[in-house]
Amino acid sequence: MFRQTSEFTTWFAEQRRVQRHRVTPVRLDALDGWAAEPGTGNLRHRTGRFFTVEGVEVTTGRRVTPSWSQPIIVQPEHGVLGIVVREFDGVPHFLLQAKMEPGNINLLQLSPTVQATRSNYTRVHAGRAVPYLEHFLGPRRGRVLLDALQSEQGSWFLGKRNRNMIVEVTGDVPVLPGFCWLTAAQIGELLREDHLVNMDTRSVLAGLPWGRHGRPEAAVLDGADDTDRAAHTMAELIGHLTEVRAAHAVTRRRVPLNEVKGWSDNGAELRHEDGRYFTVIGVDVEADGREVARWSQPMLAPVGRGLIGFLARHLDGVPHLLAQIRTEAGSFDVAEFAPTVQCLPANHAHLPPGDRPRFLDAVRDAPDAARLLDVTHSEEGGRFHHAANRYTVVLDEDAPRDPGPGFVWLTPRQLADLVRVPGQVDVEARNLLTCLRWWR
Amino acid sequence: MFRQTSEFTTWFAEQRRVQRHRVTPVRLDALDGWAAEPGTGNLRHRTGRFFTVEGVEVTTGRRVTPSWSQPIIVQPEHGVLGIVVREFDGVPHFLLQAKMEPGNINLLQLSPTVQATRSNYTRVHAGRAVPYLEHFLGPRRGRVLLDALQSEQGSWFLGKRNRNMIVEVTGDVPVLPGFCWLTAAQIGELLREDHLVNMDTRSVLAGLPWGRHGRPEAAVLDGADDTDRAAHTMAELIGHLTEVRAAHAVTRRRVPLNEVKGWSDNGAELRHEDGRYFTVIGVDVEADGREVARWSQPMLAPVGRGLIGFLARHLDGVPHLLAQIRTEAGSFDVAEFAPTVQCLPANHAHLPPGDRPRFLDAVRDAPDAARLLDVTHSEEGGRFHHAANRYTVVLDEDAPRDPGPGFVWLTPRQLADLVRVPGQVDVEARNLLTCLRWWR
Repeated sequence: MFRQTSEFTTWFAEQRRVQRHRVTPVRLDALDGWAAEPGTGNLRHRTGRFFTVEGVEVTTGRRVTPSWSQPIIVQPEHGVLGIVVREFDGVPHFLLQAKMEPGNINLLQLSPTVQATRSNYTRVHAGRAVPYLEHFLGPRRGRVLLDALQSEQGSWFLGKRNRNMIVEVTGDVPVLPGFCWLTAAQIGELLREDHLVNMDTRSVLAGLPWGRHGRPEAAVLDGADDTDRAAHTMAELIGHLTEVRAAHAVTRRRVPLNEVKGWSDNGAELRHEDGRYFTVIGVDVEADGREVARWSQPMLAPVGRGLIGFLARHLDGVPHLLAQIRTEAGSFDVAEFAPTVQCLPANHAHLPPGDRPRFLDAVRDAPDAARLLDVTHSEEGGRFHHAANRYTVVLDEDAPRDPGPGFVWLTPRQLADLVRVPGQVDVEARNLLTCLRWWR
Repeated sequence: MFRQTSEFTTWFAEQRRVQRHRVTPVRLDALDGWAAEPGTGNLRHRTGRFFTVEGVEVTTGRRVTPSWSQPIIVQPEHGVLGIVVREFDGVPHFLLQAKMEPGNINLLQLSPTVQATRSNYTRVHAGRAVPYLEHFLGPRRGRVLLDALQSEQGSWFLGKRNRNMIVEVTGDVPVLPGFCWLTAAQIGELLREDHLVNMDTRSVLAGLPWGRHGRPEAAVLDGADDTDRAAHTMAELIGHLTEVRAAHAVTRRRVPLNEVKGWSDNGAELRHEDGRYFTVIGVDVEADGREVARWSQPMLAPVGRGLIGFLARHLDGVPHLLAQIRTEAGSFDVAEFAPTVQCLPANHAHLPPGDRPRFLDAVRDAPDAARLLDVTHSEEGGRFHHAANRYTVVLDEDAPRDPGPGFVWLTPRQLADLVRVPGQVDVEARNLLTCLRWWR
């Protein structure tokens, strides 16, 4: 246990020292074990396992960019993202690990107790067993507080989902090297640091039952989160989502990677002709403290820093967030609740202002005094290379009460309740909700 | 309004008289507008619209019948199943219609206010406008009590979902010919009659908020439905479902209809070589009171009557139902909560007893005194021909507290709460839950 954050800082610095690793960029055409499949150009491992990079063609009813095609990561298997919770002296502690991922900024970040693809834990990698897995799979597991399949980045993954789990245990849990117990308050402090609490941890923590363990939920927003006085009932919120899902405005088709228009693979990397969106690069990894000590893989590297933000305001005295109902190329089920803004602003810089995402300016250009929180975090470092997003919540009491089609006001608690049901809230909104709920 | 059920009976008999229709079986190869597609043998309409009959190949981890292929209906579009509710003198009334469907036993059954495929309401049929649709789509709609995409029969439909809606209105609603207002108590009485309240009505009513309008919910079961004292929390229940969905035991592949093994089309109909499961037949329909007065279509006709039943018992004094977590060939998302038993018993008669569905005997062979309800209802008459299921709930205080893998105890209220979230509870369980909630 850490009595003060400074103790954690010392421990984490020591982890950086003892867990040595090196990530080296390599040309895609020189990536060990990976090659373009003849005919399709899809990037795949020689075993057919792990994941592939393929193409997808999307048509939407949107006025701007009504259709496009793009490369996308296809990884049908579900991993386990699980956090063990245990009370010590009446205070719940969360077991996290200092874990290296090749795409992480700073390499080492705080991951869930278990962060394992199915290939990991079924030993396709022929690596070491995954510690603590027995708390999540099989008969010995503790009390389940959360166990739901949740989506990941729909703009980069095709229908990818992982199992988000929180399990409460009462017995002794040995703390292995690289692991540590943290309280909710300590996690709240660490969430203020850039690139420290990783995406999977943030995603899982969003699903902790509201108010459990006496958390001061979303305390950066004044006013009681009274569901009975919210602008919409849960049935109405789900109805807004249903409307988009039932509208049949979106069609999606998998296509061979070499038929994706506007993208080309020059041997070194796969990139968009205008340098927008992302590139696909290759890396060699040498690591300690991982299941396998050395491997090579492609990674998706976004172009520029993204912006993930909620507009917030009070409606009849009750704090609300403005959710977008958003469709991505890879959305598992057409659309999910998303933050007000979720994009790489650079992708839209060439468009006339009226064609840029709604509320982008309001979230990006708000004065610092209006920001209830503001931090830069990384996305998952196992697939994404230096994918950084600014996470922010902007208080704007003048935001429109009727936000127009595709947007809806809900309270933080309503959003948290929706997270506890599989498949309704996207990973960006879950991540931002965790910042909001835990912020200290 | 009907003061007594006998008044309804008179009205409904009159509807049977004024709504005249005729359904005539025809050979598949003589079905107007429909033909087997060259190459695949898939049955489709010449416009490519409405639906198709194709093939699907399924592999599961089940011990018995680990893999099979079968014909299946593919209908990607979502329809609207919507019920208008309005209070009169403080008593909520539900607007239902006496509607003909070609596959209905008795042809006329009580349907939701709106029961329309997208083809209906976007006028592909070039028929009349769908009455009351404005209460469900567009800006004039009332207060949304339910609006969720819900699955339909996964053994016959590939990933089919419809929009289940309940909308409460306060203004005047003209009652068109063929429509009537019924109270919850009256619907509860009518649910005791075989083949009267249709599948779509039962499906939608399952999603009414629990306890709303003072319903004596699941009154046939003694004891308070206290969620806090239920055998499992909602998180644990969702966890059971997640476990099955994440297990990757199921793979599914669409195949051409003419590659489905064990099935053959003799020109007149498509059937299984052993006469099991279902046949696909053709019908010509002439109707009054429908959007189009005359059409032809294939229908799926199950072989024999099905059994849809819950085992029920008290756990620590709280009434529980035994849910199965069930995968069907066409399940939208791998598996959903289902009744304890959901099958055509005749399909399993040739198997040794140990290979038949678990709890089948307990539900089928229970003494009448143990049945809390027992009624035969029809499945959707727009696609299924005379598809009849016995719906029953069997009280068995000796049912095992630990039911083994793939089964879980939950309370009726927990099941109702799960229905209010899209995609967790299958249509058979929703239908049976409505019988249980409304039964008078």
